[in-house]
Amino acid sequence: MTAPDAALAYAREHRQAILEDLKSLLRIPSISSHAMGTSPAMLQTAEWIAGQLRGLGFEAVDLLPTPRNPVVTGEWLRAGPSAPTLLVYGHYDVQPTDPLELWTSDPFDPQVRGDNLYARGASDMKGQLVAHIKAVESLIRTTGLKVNLKFMIEGEEEIGSPDLEAFLRQHKDRFTCDLCFNGDSGILAPDIPSLTYGVRGLSYFEIRLTGPASDLHSGSFGGAVDNPAFVLCQLIAGMRDRRGRITLPGFYDRVRRVSKSEREELARLPMDEAWWLEKTGAPALSGEAGYTSSERAKARPTLEVNGFLSGFTGQGSKTVLPSKAMAKISMRLVPDQTPVEVRQGLRAYLEANAPPTVTWELEELSSCGPAIVERDSEAVRAASLALEAVWGKRPVFDRTGGSIPVVGLIQDLLGVDSLLLGFGLPDDNLHAPNEKQNLPNLFKGIEATIHFLSEIHK
Amino acid sequence: MTAPDAALAYAREHRQAILEDLKSLLRIPSISSHAMGTSPAMLQTAEWIAGQLRGLGFEAVDLLPTPRNPVVTGEWLRAGPSAPTLLVYGHYDVQPTDPLELWTSDPFDPQVRGDNLYARGASDMKGQLVAHIKAVESLIRTTGLKVNLKFMIEGEEEIGSPDLEAFLRQHKDRFTCDLCFNGDSGILAPDIPSLTYGVRGLSYFEIRLTGPASDLHSGSFGGAVDNPAFVLCQLIAGMRDRRGRITLPGFYDRVRRVSKSEREELARLPMDEAWWLEKTGAPALSGEAGYTSSERAKARPTLEVNGFLSGFTGQGSKTVLPSKAMAKISMRLVPDQTPVEVRQGLRAYLEANAPPTVTWELEELSSCGPAIVERDSEAVRAASLALEAVWGKRPVFDRTGGSIPVVGLIQDLLGVDSLLLGFGLPDDNLHAPNEKQNLPNLFKGIEATIHFLSEIHK
Repeated sequence: MTAPDAALAYAREHRQAILEDLKSLLRIPSISSHAMGTSPAMLQTAEWIAGQLRGLGFEAVDLLPTPRNPVVTGEWLRAGPSAPTLLVYGHYDVQPTDPLELWTSDPFDPQVRGDNLYARGASDMKGQLVAHIKAVESLIRTTGLKVNLKFMIEGEEEIGSPDLEAFLRQHKDRFTCDLCFNGDSGILAPDIPSLTYGVRGLSYFEIRLTGPASDLHSGSFGGAVDNPAFVLCQLIAGMRDRRGRITLPGFYDRVRRVSKSEREELARLPMDEAWWLEKTGAPALSGEAGYTSSERAKARPTLEVNGFLSGFTGQGSKTVLPSKAMAKISMRLVPDQTPVEVRQGLRAYLEANAPPTVTWELEELSSCGPAIVERDSEAVRAASLALEAVWGKRPVFDRTGGSIPVVGLIQDLLGVDSLLLGFGLPDDNLHAPNEKQNLPNLFKGIEATIHFLSEIHK
Repeated sequence: MTAPDAALAYAREHRQAILEDLKSLLRIPSISSHAMGTSPAMLQTAEWIAGQLRGLGFEAVDLLPTPRNPVVTGEWLRAGPSAPTLLVYGHYDVQPTDPLELWTSDPFDPQVRGDNLYARGASDMKGQLVAHIKAVESLIRTTGLKVNLKFMIEGEEEIGSPDLEAFLRQHKDRFTCDLCFNGDSGILAPDIPSLTYGVRGLSYFEIRLTGPASDLHSGSFGGAVDNPAFVLCQLIAGMRDRRGRITLPGFYDRVRRVSKSEREELARLPMDEAWWLEKTGAPALSGEAGYTSSERAKARPTLEVNGFLSGFTGQGSKTVLPSKAMAKISMRLVPDQTPVEVRQGLRAYLEANAPPTVTWELEELSSCGPAIVERDSEAVRAASLALEAVWGKRPVFDRTGGSIPVVGLIQDLLGVDSLLLGFGLPDDNLHAPNEKQNLPNLFKGIEATIHFLSEIHK
């Protein structure tokens, strides 16, 4: 392993300056909104990042426009064609701050209390962004940077990246790379370095059933016609069997097996059955037979009812036989499932099972593909060594059950995997009052990033 | 058959006076409300009825108080102990009138247009009430009344008779009788005399399931815990089998068979499968195997989902794994099912089938028993002959799929059956703008009531 001692020393010496830089970034209230056009605060934030990149000698530093907030770009390509090119993805926008009264200090007046820096965006993800920039700075100012970097820092992640797909399609050629390096993540605990190498995909649907033409009196008509709420219950109940397996046609055809070694890694996570019970507050755990809770929630596909509405749901009793019933259901996908095939399977299931007593509509409300970085890839090898170098122990390998649309988007449009390497903590109060960044963790993160950027080869 | 010719002649001669009396009753805006205490309009209406009974020489004419509106009572017991004693049940309150702008004429300014008299309460049920009173008057003023009558006319039926049970318990001894004679009903069409001899009961429940302690992110936790909306779908789907039979333990144990002759009668109803299709607007009919739609909706028990709510039901997608799910489900009961046994069956089903991954609560929101008058009873025989005498053809025998709580209440507290004999029509706009009473039908109804009161024996 290359020991980038000079860069590490630089980072340690500049901790106070790094903290002050992060604070100045956190003072800009870059709350994104769905409104078209951008705002002075967003522009100021984007300029702040562009200024950092320019200061480091990056080229092609730009604020490329979108219908809302610009994307900050910048390139460092001096490592040459034999070195890998990393796309550094991040976002400079933050969540809203309400309820403001629950904040101990002003969300845009960063305050250090104990080991933590409190401010909106401290962890999600201005802290991670500064960690990446300062790791790059530490290398450029000392031993030199041995990889090519292309920055792409958007300003709309907290509102669902509505303009990113069109932006990427438009600027695809500019972002050619070998790997996406995404800091919008964290580790499991301050003493548990971890690598998130997989994310689940999502297929989210609304199913609408209509039975009788209008709501009917359940006394006068009950028994003679089917009840769409009942039919929807039947259809949904039939989507899963007694062993917790999803029955939609072809659903498992492309599901990648969880290998023995992967199961061993997942078993190392600090999430045993007692943890899942406590975290969920459920009376008992359950799920697909033959898998642990961590495997079920992280590495296996699922089907959930996210919402169900039919008939009378107020206080008391109303003897209505409803005309309509609606459910929102979604599937979490794992490699190599695709939203297109899942939608086809659901449609085939409804075609085969919906009775002629109702009509139905199926609408796909959102979808994104699953993604995984091979654990024996160069990116995972380098990241693993980097974490071990800083924490003094081998990281655990995690997959997140959630979905990160940008990961799928970059896979689809640029054809590369994303390595998630950020240093937030589960208790950082993301999207909540009193968001914080643990500073020792931040400084360790900078060092791990230095190691990673020094370690990775093509 | 006794031919009460003089009474019939009296009724015919007094048609104009009867119409004017009905109009004067309809002018009083006796809309009931849930508020405690009564109102001048309610008292005036009650007094109007009491005045009619006093004018006919009834005894014990009273306005007996309840927490809201008084019950009008009065007795005619001069037919002696060998004659039957009928409890004449009715209500003098009416539904609200909104939306007022849809009325062609003022709801409390009764207007005759064509064959119909338009006013709120014209059919439900001041018209029927006046029909009964005027039939009694016609007999008393001519050949004499051969039955004993006890009137009990409440003022809260349109708000669900909230005080009637306590009232009946308090005054039980006063209302000892052989049969309840209830005019709060109608016939199937002007040329189809019909007798409603059965009503279904009702057991209405709310089931509430809780899974995780709070709503969870469906990505982070989906797969590891059960989803209460999914479990509720499973539980509900399991309540009915593929043949449309309800699977709750013991549900059919006390269901009285629909006899061959009863099925023949139901088949005579002007409600074939095409009628049910058109009336419901459903894409197709369905229900319990082996029964026609009329049998399913009138003479067989059913289970309906009246409402279902869980999770996110607004626009768009929210990836929530809901903590709670709620459904309102109700059963329509037929003789000799009881709400108590149905509740026990549902509870046993939930105990046997709800998984340990959720907790559940079951609340009974309302219930009333089913009721039937034996078709070979004296009451049905007399009513059938009365209808045939007026319409010139045998009536059809109908059972209503709805529930009439007062019928069960009187069965429970006084131990007698109710004969439903009213002369409303299906298109009378009950509870809607432009309520009407068909006048030829009203006058036929008075004559049929004269026949019935002359015909019935102990």
